[in-house]
Amino acid sequence: MGRSGPFTLAEIAVRLGGRVAGNPGILIRQVGSLERAAEGEIAFLSSLKYRSRLVATNASAVVLSSEAEALTALPRIVCDNPYAYFARLSRMLNPSLPPVPGLHPAAQISPGARIAASARVDAGVVIEEGASVGERVAVGAGSFLGTGVALGDDSRLYPSVTIYRDCRIGARALLHSGVVIGADGFGMANDGGQWIKIPQLGGVVIGDDVEIGANTTVDRGALDDTVIEDGVKLDNQIQVGHNCRIGAHTAIAGCTGIAGSTVIGRHCAIGGGAGILGHLTICDHVTVSACTVISRSIRQPGTYTGVFPFDHNKAWARNAALVRHLAELAERVRELENRLRAKEKGDG
Amino acid sequence: MGRSGPFTLAEIAVRLGGRVAGNPGILIRQVGSLERAAEGEIAFLSSLKYRSRLVATNASAVVLSSEAEALTALPRIVCDNPYAYFARLSRMLNPSLPPVPGLHPAAQISPGARIAASARVDAGVVIEEGASVGERVAVGAGSFLGTGVALGDDSRLYPSVTIYRDCRIGARALLHSGVVIGADGFGMANDGGQWIKIPQLGGVVIGDDVEIGANTTVDRGALDDTVIEDGVKLDNQIQVGHNCRIGAHTAIAGCTGIAGSTVIGRHCAIGGGAGILGHLTICDHVTVSACTVISRSIRQPGTYTGVFPFDHNKAWARNAALVRHLAELAERVRELENRLRAKEKGDG
Amino acid sequence: MGRSGPFTLAEIAVRLGGRVAGNPGILIRQVGSLERAAEGEIAFLSSLKYRSRLVATNASAVVLSSEAEALTALPRIVCDNPYAYFARLSRMLNPSLPPVPGLHPAAQISPGARIAASARVDAGVVIEEGASVGERVAVGAGSFLGTGVALGDDSRLYPSVTIYRDCRIGARALLHSGVVIGADGFGMANDGGQWIKIPQLGGVVIGDDVEIGANTTVDRGALDDTVIEDGVKLDNQIQVGHNCRIGAHTAIAGCTGIAGSTVIGRHCAIGGGAGILGHLTICDHVTVSACTVISRSIRQPGTYTGVFPFDHNKAWARNAALVRHLAELAERVRELENRLRAKEKGDG
Repeated sequence: MGRSGPFTLAEIAVRLGGRVAGNPGILIRQVGSLERAAEGEIAFLSSLKYRSRLVATNASAVVLSSEAEALTALPRIVCDNPYAYFARLSRMLNPSLPPVPGLHPAAQISPGARIAASARVDAGVVIEEGASVGERVAVGAGSFLGTGVALGDDSRLYPSVTIYRDCRIGARALLHSGVVIGADGFGMANDGGQWIKIPQLGGVVIGDDVEIGANTTVDRGALDDTVIEDGVKLDNQIQVGHNCRIGAHTAIAGCTGIAGSTVIGRHCAIGGGAGILGHLTICDHVTVSACTVISRSIRQPGTYTGVFPFDHNKAWARNAALVRHLAELAERVRELENRLRAKEKGDG
Repeated sequence: MGRSGPFTLAEIAVRLGGRVAGNPGILIRQVGSLERAAEGEIAFLSSLKYRSRLVATNASAVVLSSEAEALTALPRIVCDNPYAYFARLSRMLNPSLPPVPGLHPAAQISPGARIAASARVDAGVVIEEGASVGERVAVGAGSFLGTGVALGDDSRLYPSVTIYRDCRIGARALLHSGVVIGADGFGMANDGGQWIKIPQLGGVVIGDDVEIGANTTVDRGALDDTVIEDGVKLDNQIQVGHNCRIGAHTAIAGCTGIAGSTVIGRHCAIGGGAGILGHLTICDHVTVSACTVISRSIRQPGTYTGVFPFDHNKAWARNAALVRHLAELAERVRELENRLRAKEKGDG
Repeated sequence: MGRSGPFTLAEIAVRLGGRVAGNPGILIRQVGSLERAAEGEIAFLSSLKYRSRLVATNASAVVLSSEAEALTALPRIVCDNPYAYFARLSRMLNPSLPPVPGLHPAAQISPGARIAASARVDAGVVIEEGASVGERVAVGAGSFLGTGVALGDDSRLYPSVTIYRDCRIGARALLHSGVVIGADGFGMANDGGQWIKIPQLGGVVIGDDVEIGANTTVDRGALDDTVIEDGVKLDNQIQVGHNCRIGAHTAIAGCTGIAGSTVIGRHCAIGGGAGILGHLTICDHVTVSACTVISRSIRQPGTYTGVFPFDHNKAWARNAALVRHLAELAERVRELENRLRAKEKGDG
């Protein structure tokens, strides 16, 4: 990551929009949190519930919404979506720089691989026959690109990323350490009590602008491909089963598991630790709460949740025991209704 | 993976059994899905619920059961277990080939390691003293075999597999990238608020024909060994705690965690995302549904489930709040029963 | 790990305390389990529920509490906390040895990195500019230390550990294979349906005496640091989100996920497979049961649980369906109460 700036508030607003209130000449060199920002740093307020931090901040300026504008006398930028504005501002001050090109002598690159002249390949990398690495790509130390793998322009692999043969990654991908793309899907047929492995002949196709977190795994398809569309963001330690399709601009938080052949729509937000069963279809614009298990398809946008509420261990144990006898409780209520109705009639 | 064929339907049936219906001379070069199979490809129908795909398929032939035989006029192979048949057929068309033997000059192999002449060791691999690598084994780039590790014949390690000292893997193992075998179990004794690490002196013993998915971890035992028996199939991102034993031909789907000292029987099927607590015993032929938490031993074969059903967030919130007050609700029902009984008696 | 001894029971008690009962001259060379310990090995009894194993053991001696002292005639050491005693005894017999120093010629060490003369760096390691490696540190094969990373004295990295730039690890750390420290936190702002990545400018600061299990990931902070305090023990496949703080001497079992900005207190014990949502505060001395989802802050020490109890699939399905209609059931009970009250009044 590089550094850029400093910029005045006025210069920032020219580039990114928004309206300056207070001294437009204040110089900003970095972003910071309300709690720890120092002289020369700009913080942001995303919600009025953090207003007390705004009062106490040492930041030189703040990004906030018009409804919060009057809460501070600090120089500020007023805009509609302070969090997104702050993201763009942080990227402006901390731009991603293209890598210093070059192939490390301790990398093993097959003669039949095509590596762009502007790409960088670090020590210990192995690139097999027929792989192609686009312009300004950086391949981190110890990573592996199998036969026929394609990496789009401006992609970055951190150290120890593994991509099995024939998987294709789009432009501007960001793959973190420990990511494994294209391992075999879990395809086994049971034959008389033993498991016969089904060769996994499909690949993985990943669109543009996709980020994949550390130690996340995306399996190759059994017959057809596993597909991750443009703009998808996957956090750490996610498992994507074979033949899944994840729609464009969907974000999935860490530790979520998605079983095979499930199709997730566009613009979905899946909370961390969720479990999504196989062969389901989830439509666009669905939010799944953290740690929720999705066991059937979802056809309507909305927010879906299913988590056993935690409690003191003793209270939980009592209630959990009753959950196992809910059918009996419901039966007793039905019987009470019948008896009371009979009584009411008899007395009537 | 290699390619073999093409074969006529008649040749396939001679090798794998089943009965041909329709033109037995049709040439088959590859398997495919009903939806995307093309000329020269054979698909399969595993369940009548996909019969509409059968009608629309462009496959040249189909594998199906006798109950589905009349649903298509395509050349077909009729058999008892179409999915298992298809698995065997796919393996026949896409056979696993032995690796091209050789030790890459950028591998670090200790002089005291024994590597079979037919084995292949790729760049960046480190093999320590006393390790042994069997016939036709392939060790993928960047993998690590600690002191005394033994790999059985025909095993394959994809890139970046780590096996700690003294762990033993059987024949025909398939270990995917990011697998870690033999890291220390989580053994800590609490002494006055601080944790004392207990040296993990056991190993890991893995049988024949075991497949282990990407980024799965199997810890070494504390005093005795952790054991994975023959034919076990583990999907990605599974955690197997120290001193577990997993019985032969059990399959476990991705993201499941198994705490220490638990014994799982033979021929079990554990769904993805399950959590199995420590020091339990699960008998043979148990099925655990996805995302279910197993908190006590299971003595009877069968299917076990425990998942909070998901719902619209609002409905969930209302019901979840009531779950936390189930004991009170049950008490109110009991009181109603008492009062109604008193009333009925009083009126009687 | 080294070996030390053998020692007599008397010598052991001199070093570690406790009281010897029976022959103090018995020679002990190793620890073992009650079930498998052989001649010359010492086992331990942590709970009276394992007393039958004590009767059957072939161990030469046993560590136990005074309440169990009379259950065996074997030579024994009587102490208050047999499990902690056993841990210390196992460490005495199996001490951690400092590594054999040296930099492997196939390691890539930047000229600006500072490596202590007593440290060991294995093959395939990459250490970037400005990194520092303390005395007696061992860096396992294929590990990566980014720019400015600091590793404290006596730390050990097993093979394939990745530490991104500028993260700091204390003394006596133990990091297992596949660990990734300092990957980007999952910080994205949504702007008109697309995700804008927020540069992750913080680092990770890890205290002394921390152990981190295989394939666990600890993300770097967005603006400020992610912090793991002294003596924390993390098992395998844990995800720690950006800007979390985990208090000293807290232990977390495998497969647990902790979302961003959550603060966990000191001396907590978090069960395996737990899910802890973001922006929460959990006080000191909290125990969270395995597979429990923590969805709000916890202010009181204690044990907290929330797991759907598993059952035969059919019973579960019936009860789970009723969980989704609990609100209606509660409404029916309320109505019954009203009607019965009316009846009782009317009859009164």
